[in-house]
Amino acid sequence: MAEPVFRRLALLGIGLIGSSVARIAMQRGDVAAEVVANARTQASLDRVTALGIAHRVELDPAKAVEGADCVMLCAPVGAYAALAEAIAPHLAPGAILTDVGSTKQSVIRDVGPLVPAGVHFVPGHPLAGTEHSGPDSGFVELFTGRWTLLTPPPGTDPESVEKIAELWRRCGSMVEIMEPAHHDRVLAIVSHLPHLIAFTICGTADDLADETRQQVLQFAASGFRDFTRIAASDPEMWRDVFLNNREALLEMLARFTEDAQAMARAVRWGDAAYIEDKIGRGRKIRRSLIELKQA
Amino acid sequence: MAEPVFRRLALLGIGLIGSSVARIAMQRGDVAAEVVANARTQASLDRVTALGIAHRVELDPAKAVEGADCVMLCAPVGAYAALAEAIAPHLAPGAILTDVGSTKQSVIRDVGPLVPAGVHFVPGHPLAGTEHSGPDSGFVELFTGRWTLLTPPPGTDPESVEKIAELWRRCGSMVEIMEPAHHDRVLAIVSHLPHLIAFTICGTADDLADETRQQVLQFAASGFRDFTRIAASDPEMWRDVFLNNREALLEMLARFTEDAQAMARAVRWGDAAYIEDKIGRGRKIRRSLIELKQA
Repeated sequence: MAEPVFRRLALLGIGLIGSSVARIAMQRGDVAAEVVANARTQASLDRVTALGIAHRVELDPAKAVEGADCVMLCAPVGAYAALAEAIAPHLAPGAILTDVGSTKQSVIRDVGPLVPAGVHFVPGHPLAGTEHSGPDSGFVELFTGRWTLLTPPPGTDPESVEKIAELWRRCGSMVEIMEPAHHDRVLAIVSHLPHLIAFTICGTADDLADETRQQVLQFAASGFRDFTRIAASDPEMWRDVFLNNREALLEMLARFTEDAQAMARAVRWGDAAYIEDKIGRGRKIRRSLIELKQA
Repeated sequence: MAEPVFRRLALLGIGLIGSSVARIAMQRGDVAAEVVANARTQASLDRVTALGIAHRVELDPAKAVEGADCVMLCAPVGAYAALAEAIAPHLAPGAILTDVGSTKQSVIRDVGPLVPAGVHFVPGHPLAGTEHSGPDSGFVELFTGRWTLLTPPPGTDPESVEKIAELWRRCGSMVEIMEPAHHDRVLAIVSHLPHLIAFTICGTADDLADETRQQVLQFAASGFRDFTRIAASDPEMWRDVFLNNREALLEMLARFTEDAQAMARAVRWGDAAYIEDKIGRGRKIRRSLIELKQA
């Protein structure tokens, strides 16, 4: 077996992502020699203990990070500032601080200034997820064949970036480096806007008159169902994502809304050619995904 | 084996739905004793012959319906008026004319006036589909556990309605009778609007600057992918659906757009409680679907 990438990995937050990393690290042995799990509630830590997915659990984040050479923030991004403040004085010299949040400019804004000298800060984002949450929801295959994006600020220690990249590769992920603002724009269209739309249409359906609403549920199979799967995701995490990628998300929503209005106009005035062209683009994109094996 | 519901079933159009019905009828034997397939092109009929999913193929719809006691329109709904005009003089007395279109008021408007006296008209809509199309895309399990909605106009012969219901039950479907305008409203929100949104967001992504567009494809797994699956559906069929359910679709899109704007406002002004409430509704609806076994 290869040498473990880290001696002690502290996971602050043990939901879908954190508990998947924990499971992989416990199973492989070459990600970290020791896994410490921290969560907001003792109930979550009790689940971690029962599941046997960490060597040690610790309710106090300051204690959880002591002596760790890698600290990974796996909480909703809105909780990062307070967490970083709590742990900053306790981070070991030379430790790497990383995260898994879906927004990256906000993380650099909130956490960056709190990182002590001698600690390396490597923001990251594994593009993997399901609609489930909590310590029971993780699984070792979550990152297999998926991308992890790292967005190190200028001047970040290259060796630290490489160690975090190696951690994710051992978790089964492919790794790419990306500029934080570009990350936030790409994620706004591939992930944040689709989630905003899915949450919204569920609300729209929920507001319909009683009889129709019942039948929406009964006959959901015809497309709506796929939206509800996305819409079942963790409310707190997504609230924080929306609030922390505000500008890119609002820009993509504005573009989408213009396009939806143009489609509405084509439907109203019977512009068949316009509608066919838009539908044809959807097909083309789907085919590209199939070719890229991302479908 | 039970007596076949029909002596001769003529399928006008042999794409995903038509070729699935054909496969079931050929395999079970108790749906129709004879299956006749019609399509717009000889190439499609050659595929039907090669696949062995009909007893007979017929390029002329007027000839296809001769002597049939059940004629099922399985073409895009925009083609119905011309098809109905072509076959009307050739329909056998006592025959049942039915269809599988996704819009029902338009079908009653376009086909109803052309139905000769003595022929029974039972509009229907199996709520089943995939993103694939053409005679190769059908399969015998397509309707299993799915709903078929029948929307007979007032005064329709009850025995004819029951025969079409029995056909669908033998195809594995559950059957419900619904008022046509109500059908069109329910389908607008559960199916037509989700498709319009999926086509639109693919176009929005396709319009982004080159580098971002490439990365949209590369990192599509995070939600966008589910939209592209819906967006891969048959362009001609969906163009016709949008144009033939204009009013209900535009109303649902207007409601959705208002709700999306309210969400945008909450994101802009940091209204966390509003956002959490909307996300919570998505979860609730998803849970209802799971309870109804429609997830």
